[in-house]
Amino acid sequence: MFGERLAQDAALIQRSFDTVLGALEPLDITRAMAWTTEGGKRLRGFLVLESARLHDVDEARAIWPATAIEALHAYSLVHDDLPCMDDDDLRRGRPTAHVKWDEGTAVLAGDALHSLAFELCTRPETGSAETRATLALTLAQAAGARGMVLGQALDIAAETAPEPLTLDQITQLQAGKTGALIEWSAAAGAVLAGADPAPLRQYARALGLAFQIADDILDVEGDAEKAGKRLQKDASAGKATFVSLLGLDAARTRARDLVDQACDALSPYGARAETLKEAARFVIAREN
Amino acid sequence: MFGERLAQDAALIQRSFDTVLGALEPLDITRAMAWTTEGGKRLRGFLVLESARLHDVDEARAIWPATAIEALHAYSLVHDDLPCMDDDDLRRGRPTAHVKWDEGTAVLAGDALHSLAFELCTRPETGSAETRATLALTLAQAAGARGMVLGQALDIAAETAPEPLTLDQITQLQAGKTGALIEWSAAAGAVLAGADPAPLRQYARALGLAFQIADDILDVEGDAEKAGKRLQKDASAGKATFVSLLGLDAARTRARDLVDQACDALSPYGARAETLKEAARFVIAREN
Repeated sequence: MFGERLAQDAALIQRSFDTVLGALEPLDITRAMAWTTEGGKRLRGFLVLESARLHDVDEARAIWPATAIEALHAYSLVHDDLPCMDDDDLRRGRPTAHVKWDEGTAVLAGDALHSLAFELCTRPETGSAETRATLALTLAQAAGARGMVLGQALDIAAETAPEPLTLDQITQLQAGKTGALIEWSAAAGAVLAGADPAPLRQYARALGLAFQIADDILDVEGDAEKAGKRLQKDASAGKATFVSLLGLDAARTRARDLVDQACDALSPYGARAETLKEAARFVIAREN
Repeated sequence: MFGERLAQDAALIQRSFDTVLGALEPLDITRAMAWTTEGGKRLRGFLVLESARLHDVDEARAIWPATAIEALHAYSLVHDDLPCMDDDDLRRGRPTAHVKWDEGTAVLAGDALHSLAFELCTRPETGSAETRATLALTLAQAAGARGMVLGQALDIAAETAPEPLTLDQITQLQAGKTGALIEWSAAAGAVLAGADPAPLRQYARALGLAFQIADDILDVEGDAEKAGKRLQKDASAGKATFVSLLGLDAARTRARDLVDQACDALSPYGARAETLKEAARFVIAREN
């Protein structure tokens, strides 16, 4: 159920990107925007669409914030991959934008995707003005210097810190770096319906942390070909990770506990939330 | 009147930034955010505040979109100054962020300011949900791949084009690169009041183009010390500008005509629009 739904939702979001990006002038930066958004699991967009289904929100409305969060995620990847940041040549098994084009094009394509995210989630089709203003405000908070960018900045600061990070510090860093967008995505369905987003936020906080622990495990144990990116980066850089701090076995146990917590948080939704529970189980079993 | 008002508004916006940025964690990227927003004329923020006054909108509401547009403008400058873009060491008479810190910090500080702009203009204090959603949607359109970033991309493409740009092409490029944000700023007061933004948009389109022609004249004739940045960049790069295409005298005449058009567009507002008219006359007389 979940695997099929994830693939269907990824295809829906791709069609939405095709429409939106196809309307732009054909230039290197618009090609780089399309390139950067292609592929990937589109887990964040799936969370928007699935949390919307949980509240009987029309797909025709939910597709806009789902495309928005994938645009925002793509912007963060293209900037993260730059030589002055993580310096990655490969992403989703293909050359990164600054390799395929150049750094200036990659910076601008990321900037354009960043603005596009806010354009998409404030489109009139998304819902009432209240819904659209709330989606934009909470997305800006999740993406900015108290959310994702804070996590990225703490990550950079950690590279030159005299002491490796503690478990609490890594948890805070990841809550920003990957957690904030995942939480926004899961809450979006409730926001679209005008319902209380608290259970979905709780689900997403546990899911986001489990996702990151699984990423750290994958970085140590994974197959670079299946992952479509360079692995063992953190270990070779001497960075503290959940695995280096907890050990592999305890990290696996912690990830499983978090998945249980995520599923428990969905109990108000009963059997309707089965696909989201499957998603939580998937994030710690994936190979990429 | 105009000069004093511009200085007062710049101080208001600085206090707003002090509050907003002072609440963030003290890290290199948050210091770089503050550094990048300091100084400058803050013409865009002034346009928001002054167009709001024209419609009797409270300053306590208008300050948020005014701060937002200056955050967005600052993000565009810090990314524009990067080595992979214009590669500028000096901005407003001080080292640019990537010189004072490093490129990664400059990229992230720009990204955080970009998100911050959307957070500020969707804050509840700004007005009704309709106003906030409209401000965010139109800002995203002005900043993105059909507005500012399109202009920047056309500018980069022009550097390697076999033929220099024509007057029409430069006009289109500048309408995106500097015009879109200026138009958003001037229209903001009408949006805040729920009034028709058409006269202010017309004013801003003429103003934005006059501003750019004046910039090209300044690039040829200006004093680098007063301007606080490197000059004669375009001429030495062999780029087509309004001055290279029209000649100095005709460029000056064209700028003056545009200022007249800008002032005429404000006739529905009568004498209340005097400060905005002075602003239009100022942009072609300034030395930086």
